[in-house]
Amino acid sequence: MSRLRVSIIGAAGYVGGELLRLLLDHPFVEIQQATSGSHLGEFVYQQHPNLRKRTTLKFSDPQQVKPCDVLFLAMPHGESQQRIEDYAAIAPRIVDCSADFRLRDAELYRRYYGEEHRAPAWLSKFVYGLPELHREEMRSAAYISGVGCNATASILALYPLVKADALDLTRPVIVEIKTGSSEGGASPNPGSHHPERSGVIRTFSAYGHRHTAEVIQELGLSEVHLTMTAVDLVRGALATAHAFLRPGIGEKDLWKIYRQWAESEPFIRLVRDRRGIYRVPEPKILAGSNYADVGFDVDECSGRVIGMAAIDNLMKGAAGSAVQAMNLMCGFDETAGLTFGGLHPI
Amino acid sequence: MSRLRVSIIGAAGYVGGELLRLLLDHPFVEIQQATSGSHLGEFVYQQHPNLRKRTTLKFSDPQQVKPCDVLFLAMPHGESQQRIEDYAAIAPRIVDCSADFRLRDAELYRRYYGEEHRAPAWLSKFVYGLPELHREEMRSAAYISGVGCNATASILALYPLVKADALDLTRPVIVEIKTGSSEGGASPNPGSHHPERSGVIRTFSAYGHRHTAEVIQELGLSEVHLTMTAVDLVRGALATAHAFLRPGIGEKDLWKIYRQWAESEPFIRLVRDRRGIYRVPEPKILAGSNYADVGFDVDECSGRVIGMAAIDNLMKGAAGSAVQAMNLMCGFDETAGLTFGGLHPI
Amino acid sequence: MSRLRVSIIGAAGYVGGELLRLLLDHPFVEIQQATSGSHLGEFVYQQHPNLRKRTTLKFSDPQQVKPCDVLFLAMPHGESQQRIEDYAAIAPRIVDCSADFRLRDAELYRRYYGEEHRAPAWLSKFVYGLPELHREEMRSAAYISGVGCNATASILALYPLVKADALDLTRPVIVEIKTGSSEGGASPNPGSHHPERSGVIRTFSAYGHRHTAEVIQELGLSEVHLTMTAVDLVRGALATAHAFLRPGIGEKDLWKIYRQWAESEPFIRLVRDRRGIYRVPEPKILAGSNYADVGFDVDECSGRVIGMAAIDNLMKGAAGSAVQAMNLMCGFDETAGLTFGGLHPI
Amino acid sequence: MSRLRVSIIGAAGYVGGELLRLLLDHPFVEIQQATSGSHLGEFVYQQHPNLRKRTTLKFSDPQQVKPCDVLFLAMPHGESQQRIEDYAAIAPRIVDCSADFRLRDAELYRRYYGEEHRAPAWLSKFVYGLPELHREEMRSAAYISGVGCNATASILALYPLVKADALDLTRPVIVEIKTGSSEGGASPNPGSHHPERSGVIRTFSAYGHRHTAEVIQELGLSEVHLTMTAVDLVRGALATAHAFLRPGIGEKDLWKIYRQWAESEPFIRLVRDRRGIYRVPEPKILAGSNYADVGFDVDECSGRVIGMAAIDNLMKGAAGSAVQAMNLMCGFDETAGLTFGGLHPI
Repeated sequence: MSRLRVSIIGAAGYVGGELLRLLLDHPFVEIQQATSGSHLGEFVYQQHPNLRKRTTLKFSDPQQVKPCDVLFLAMPHGESQQRIEDYAAIAPRIVDCSADFRLRDAELYRRYYGEEHRAPAWLSKFVYGLPELHREEMRSAAYISGVGCNATASILALYPLVKADALDLTRPVIVEIKTGSSEGGASPNPGSHHPERSGVIRTFSAYGHRHTAEVIQELGLSEVHLTMTAVDLVRGALATAHAFLRPGIGEKDLWKIYRQWAESEPFIRLVRDRRGIYRVPEPKILAGSNYADVGFDVDECSGRVIGMAAIDNLMKGAAGSAVQAMNLMCGFDETAGLTFGGLHPI
Repeated sequence: MSRLRVSIIGAAGYVGGELLRLLLDHPFVEIQQATSGSHLGEFVYQQHPNLRKRTTLKFSDPQQVKPCDVLFLAMPHGESQQRIEDYAAIAPRIVDCSADFRLRDAELYRRYYGEEHRAPAWLSKFVYGLPELHREEMRSAAYISGVGCNATASILALYPLVKADALDLTRPVIVEIKTGSSEGGASPNPGSHHPERSGVIRTFSAYGHRHTAEVIQELGLSEVHLTMTAVDLVRGALATAHAFLRPGIGEKDLWKIYRQWAESEPFIRLVRDRRGIYRVPEPKILAGSNYADVGFDVDECSGRVIGMAAIDNLMKGAAGSAVQAMNLMCGFDETAGLTFGGLHPI
Repeated sequence: MSRLRVSIIGAAGYVGGELLRLLLDHPFVEIQQATSGSHLGEFVYQQHPNLRKRTTLKFSDPQQVKPCDVLFLAMPHGESQQRIEDYAAIAPRIVDCSADFRLRDAELYRRYYGEEHRAPAWLSKFVYGLPELHREEMRSAAYISGVGCNATASILALYPLVKADALDLTRPVIVEIKTGSSEGGASPNPGSHHPERSGVIRTFSAYGHRHTAEVIQELGLSEVHLTMTAVDLVRGALATAHAFLRPGIGEKDLWKIYRQWAESEPFIRLVRDRRGIYRVPEPKILAGSNYADVGFDVDECSGRVIGMAAIDNLMKGAAGSAVQAMNLMCGFDETAGLTFGGLHPI
Repeated sequence: MSRLRVSIIGAAGYVGGELLRLLLDHPFVEIQQATSGSHLGEFVYQQHPNLRKRTTLKFSDPQQVKPCDVLFLAMPHGESQQRIEDYAAIAPRIVDCSADFRLRDAELYRRYYGEEHRAPAWLSKFVYGLPELHREEMRSAAYISGVGCNATASILALYPLVKADALDLTRPVIVEIKTGSSEGGASPNPGSHHPERSGVIRTFSAYGHRHTAEVIQELGLSEVHLTMTAVDLVRGALATAHAFLRPGIGEKDLWKIYRQWAESEPFIRLVRDRRGIYRVPEPKILAGSNYADVGFDVDECSGRVIGMAAIDNLMKGAAGSAVQAMNLMCGFDETAGLTFGGLHPI
């Protein structure tokens, strides 16, 4: 079988780098172009030093993208919605890793992004990029959005509970997400300066984070409260969701709900052990991996449930889910190119 | 004025080390003895290398404690309740940094510690060791307990809201605490091994943590939910408290509540800025300091309030509060020996 | 082609864990047994949480090892030399990752290990496990030793200079190695306790480190000075070698020497760039990778040369080289199962 | 005694912040002005959050500096040499923390800084700012330079050996310095971005670092080789100096040399222990402290000596030495305001 030709727009950033890493080793595709305006003509390994000796590809001009089979967009927020028509003319299949096409509702977009969407007619053409929720739609999709990393962690921390109708939704659902520094992207800023960022426990978004919109949309909740705290790690995010169970639901039910889910999903691992060091989901061992480790705890006295999901924000929370989505969209084995399980210790 | 003689039982641990550091530089006391069974005869700077050239004190025998003016107990949980009578015979004033005498109610103790208290008659003789809540009682106290570090962060994150009756207590109060590794004490364990502990975001106590009992007692709440997550930092804890305001309470009220509190307290600093890197309370700049940095955020649409408190777990969460309590108990200036404001950058 | 059956003795440690990770995904072998005395009967993913959902293998009894095609030994120092006869009876090919069979000379062993070797007759049967130096011997070898991680970094930092006879060996050769915490293995000790190990720059071996013997043996030097400093990282080691060039050798010669070497070696990458962030070899991007990134700098005024080699101590410095050696020994593609290039950012 | 009035030009940077912290608590001075062009009018605690509630001082205009008793200059390299006449007209005593007046020889300056000095006539008026080497001159000095942090660590690692004439200077002297990220100052750059800087072992200056000039000047060596490696730490530097002893010099001599030195110096601590975790000098426990921890090791077989010096680069390597110099220059107790011994654990 000849390999599909894929191109990446915005390949010099962190998500672009991960797409390059994954697609270079992917069994069914070949990279045609990786563009970068600011690094045009450089070897891609000058920005992504882990790719040295893995490829001699150079960054090409984002203004000169050739037709290809699948196009990945990994530009900053706001750009793809301005040029989606052009990109659709180039490629029959698009995966847009930005936030531009994650929401189905232009009004929800306006509320969380504080501006009008530039291509509202396209919103309904995209499938939200989390394969665990939209696997079947992806098989026949042409356009797939990316996922927000914090949204992904939050959704996966709550999804089995919501889907099984286990929660008392008259009580608040609060999600605390702890994240590493790569979530902020490759551009330095005063807060990312190592002396200021090292060792932080910094609650940078107490409420109102844009990823909240994705959680509301995907879980069908009317209200969910997200709080984001930056901690000292480069890759990784842990969402800890606090909610309350409907009466009659207990630990045994949760075991069953989670087990069934983890068994049916290739990249979901249930972590809930009684001994050892790794008894709960933890992002540190997931660097580079598309797995999401999930778990739960329950206080049967109060009915309080704590759902947890750990991911690599650049993988399951971005490039990994995007490649998984491409696999589904193109009819490949869903796990192709994505079997790296992470490292220990790290 | 001659200096008061103070002794420390259990001076080789982390809290003992901080007591040594603070008391060696304290203007009104002198250290008589610092005991350690396992390090008997060693210079204290062999365990606490920061004290090298600051003192030639050696660890003395915990079985041979001489009468002194103030006795600090910094032993593991469960030991001071077995020997409190002996210690009371040696010193007229005691500050016990362990968890043994923090709770007033033997039943609450039993519920959270899973065992009977060994000296229940002594529980009522102790004042809970957080000066911000018990300043006046401390002035005439003979026995003061320590504070739990997670409890301290949680209490300070909620105290002004509870005291001002700003919360709708029919809705849940959830506190997420993120903590550094020194909270676990000086003894290595498999989970504290650097390759396993570095870079973690590890939710080690989803519910039921013992410090919950202190929060319930001190804030008078019938229910509060604590969740503890270990992150990559040595010193420091941040409590992020999630609650809901009573109708009619808004941001302006909160500003007033917090400002008044911070102005009246020597070690409480309100952090809520619009620019700069340090806009919210952060523990990293508090290493070695007795200050607690507090702040809040509020979502006026939903009535959700987020209270935050950052501390150094070994200082305001242990040795710092203990010395502040001693200052009050002995009639010294409350801030004596405690004015270190922290370091930046660090 | 049917897969070769491989077994790992001592699979619960860090090197054992990496062997498991590599061999589980290796195209030409299958894992028959992974033994652990202390974790007998547990799933291997309980010790190596990155392997969850990658395998359902359990640790088996180290006393009951079945015949296999290739046996990997990953026990603590001193054990394999006591039982090498037994192991040789089980498997025709052995890779021993410990230090037991790295030296060819029992006297050199005695000098650096302070004891008599228990199986001196076996020393000459082993090939030193660094494929970059012993590729051809490995193709026909039955017994291959492991490599010391610090030795590997030091050897690779000096090898091209020594091989090209570029150094003035009348002047001292000093190698400073900076290493992460995983080098110390999976067992906690007081110095590995996170509060004590985090943020260290700790020169734990100023001279006389045992790995010096390997560097002397492999490079044929009469004297080389190694100094080891622990820094805050889990995986990774950087060797910075300080030496002086023979008169007449300059930067152009070094470029040529290094380029030829890197071009001829599948896992050696030359890093010497004028711009970008990653201009010199750096271990952080090598976590999980078998690549060694090497580079040099030269002060033509003084004739001083600085050779650098960055590796993942658990991979190129242990399990990675061991699998590469197995590939050569078994006639597989040398890079089989080892193509992971590392992660960025991390 | 009325307090001396001191002002700081360039108080928003990291060295300026440490000067503020030290001088705010200094018993014999008061801060008159702290200037910052870019943060004019802001509270100093907005840049230095550890000073919140410690002072209500605001940054004033660097163009409007009033006469004062002592002026500290903490601007970027190259600025003070252009305006030294103006500053001398304002204050009778100046401590310049920049590199501008560290060298006595304009030719040495030209060689290492690649440009002509703008105020060569002033070079001879300054005393090099390391009190351990220039105590007596400082007592009568009007102008004192700062010190380079890497130079300070290197000088202190070699000084007792050189002063005692213990080294065979026909053999090379190589110093490897490992440093934290605060050495680079408060301005972000691509290499200081947390995802790129976290976990590094990055040899950013293999030879030719500017601080070499200070080491040559202060130790009177004709040649010394410095190599700088960035590691994951915010504050701290360790210099490991590699040299060879003159015949006849052995461990006992070194013990004597180092002991005498450490006993005679208020801020030098000798660390060379046989047990415990902190057996060698380590910067991590020195954050915020003016102490320099020094030590040595010696291989009597080869005559190789390893000298070590650990400092906080912002304290003994910058602001701490500057305040110590001021104390000497002004006739204060040399240790005034500088007795903080560091923290453990941290």
